[in-house]
Amino acid sequence: MTLPMVVRAPGLPARVRIYEVGARDGLQNEKGVVPTEVKAEFIHRLAASGLTTVEATSFVHPKWVPQLADAEALFPQVQDLGDTVDLPVLVPNERGLDRALALGARHVAVFASATESFAKANLNRTVDEALAMFEPVVSRAKAADAQVRGYLSMCFGDPWEGAVPEAQVVKVCRALIDMGCDELSLGDTIGVATPGQVASLLGALNTAGVPTDRIGVHFHDTYGQALSNTLAALRHGVTTVDASAGGLGGCPYAKSATGNLATEDLVWMLQGLGIDTGVDLSALTATSVWMAEQLGRPSPSRTVRALSHKD
Amino acid sequence: MTLPMVVRAPGLPARVRIYEVGARDGLQNEKGVVPTEVKAEFIHRLAASGLTTVEATSFVHPKWVPQLADAEALFPQVQDLGDTVDLPVLVPNERGLDRALALGARHVAVFASATESFAKANLNRTVDEALAMFEPVVSRAKAADAQVRGYLSMCFGDPWEGAVPEAQVVKVCRALIDMGCDELSLGDTIGVATPGQVASLLGALNTAGVPTDRIGVHFHDTYGQALSNTLAALRHGVTTVDASAGGLGGCPYAKSATGNLATEDLVWMLQGLGIDTGVDLSALTATSVWMAEQLGRPSPSRTVRALSHKD
Repeated sequence: MTLPMVVRAPGLPARVRIYEVGARDGLQNEKGVVPTEVKAEFIHRLAASGLTTVEATSFVHPKWVPQLADAEALFPQVQDLGDTVDLPVLVPNERGLDRALALGARHVAVFASATESFAKANLNRTVDEALAMFEPVVSRAKAADAQVRGYLSMCFGDPWEGAVPEAQVVKVCRALIDMGCDELSLGDTIGVATPGQVASLLGALNTAGVPTDRIGVHFHDTYGQALSNTLAALRHGVTTVDASAGGLGGCPYAKSATGNLATEDLVWMLQGLGIDTGVDLSALTATSVWMAEQLGRPSPSRTVRALSHKD
Repeated sequence: MTLPMVVRAPGLPARVRIYEVGARDGLQNEKGVVPTEVKAEFIHRLAASGLTTVEATSFVHPKWVPQLADAEALFPQVQDLGDTVDLPVLVPNERGLDRALALGARHVAVFASATESFAKANLNRTVDEALAMFEPVVSRAKAADAQVRGYLSMCFGDPWEGAVPEAQVVKVCRALIDMGCDELSLGDTIGVATPGQVASLLGALNTAGVPTDRIGVHFHDTYGQALSNTLAALRHGVTTVDASAGGLGGCPYAKSATGNLATEDLVWMLQGLGIDTGVDLSALTATSVWMAEQLGRPSPSRTVRALSHKD
């Protein structure tokens, strides 16, 4: 199989941790319900390809995300991976946290919004009400020795509000860190960001005292910008990058928010730059081809398409 | 229409010249012959969107590229643009140059290869034989006061040879400059490059005395890397970027070489970075939507898809 040639570039990290979201963010908007056993096999294959952080599912109320209503059945089917792979799960509130901790989850994530419009659409709360809801979730998770990630949506633009003031994003980031989140994930939910904006927000977060090693980035490829924005974040010292195997996913509440950054496209760039990820690109691509067959449509990842192309 | 927010990044050029290749590189591999009038309208629309360099056609032998066999009929239909827009045409040899000059072409391009395998496949010559063929083309074009571009394919990888030694690329670049080419276009014909490789080659060319202001870059999105590679080139001072409206195109002789960088995806990034291109993204997107209708399939450009998406 073709692999990228390795030519290092100065000023970039030696290693990047890929935070794989395909099994949760990637699948949650699939219309046809994916069988629990297929999800479990997907997660096992992702781990076998070398990914060390594989988000497994979400403990939201089944009414809101029917695709992930099988969280209680799925999580025990992947826990054999727990010694070598982090298996974070989303928890929207204390009830979700209780369900996750009861099953032995060691990594949980809350999901906040940088904008009032998306907080209302996604959580039916104001930004502050959502933060107040997360506070006991985070403190109780920390008390139970779980690691906590704080997702932050709409950091670079909002479909209702347009531009999002940097100070507003910084304020919510600070609040998440102050309540005890171990790391943040800055989401460009609608994919509008460009590299200067990424560098500027990361600089503003540093100024506000948020250390770069606690920041992950979560870009969408709606306008084809995800990988360039990732490159800008790497240059700023970010070493955690969210991606979705095969480019699965999108967001049902955000207009045109199709396309997570494909993990394979990311791995191609990182391998070419000589940045260690631990991922076997052949195995990962085979996994995405297999998952595309389960879903009945081709992967949107350009790397998956190129590597699986039959001439 | 949604437009990117502008946040400048330091160290990037203030202005980029987009060298639009959709009407030639984009269309040349279309199986169904596009009517000459449609091509002429495409070029007029591209110019009306603010593009100032629009490659119009190719004066290769009609047998090799049937899609562009109408060069003699097409070129006079777009020459009204000639006062404000550069309309380069490809010329493979002296016969092609004669045809182009007879019609009043002021900008011509020869197309060389960095590798022996592709020189053989594309030109049925060795690299040196091809350069010998181009030498009188370039000198006669210069004598006729035409501007000459030298395309160079397979600068970052070759489907038959794999890695391409940098020294080999530099040598052919030097030969093209020494024979009088005004500018070069470094092609990643199979789309395998990553940003470190781009920076490294540009550095080697500078060391060899090739000025950056005479270098354009031509990336393919086969593995999703085109825009990241463009960003790396901009950081190196490159200000000429090849792109294809709507992402049209590919290369028939290069395995899996699908997908030119889409001009709209490029413009989105450049606008967001505050880099002037003179292009009206709305008008350009409308042009690509119109062209996709002519061709009977959707544009592969993510920006075109997002901006033309009907919710």
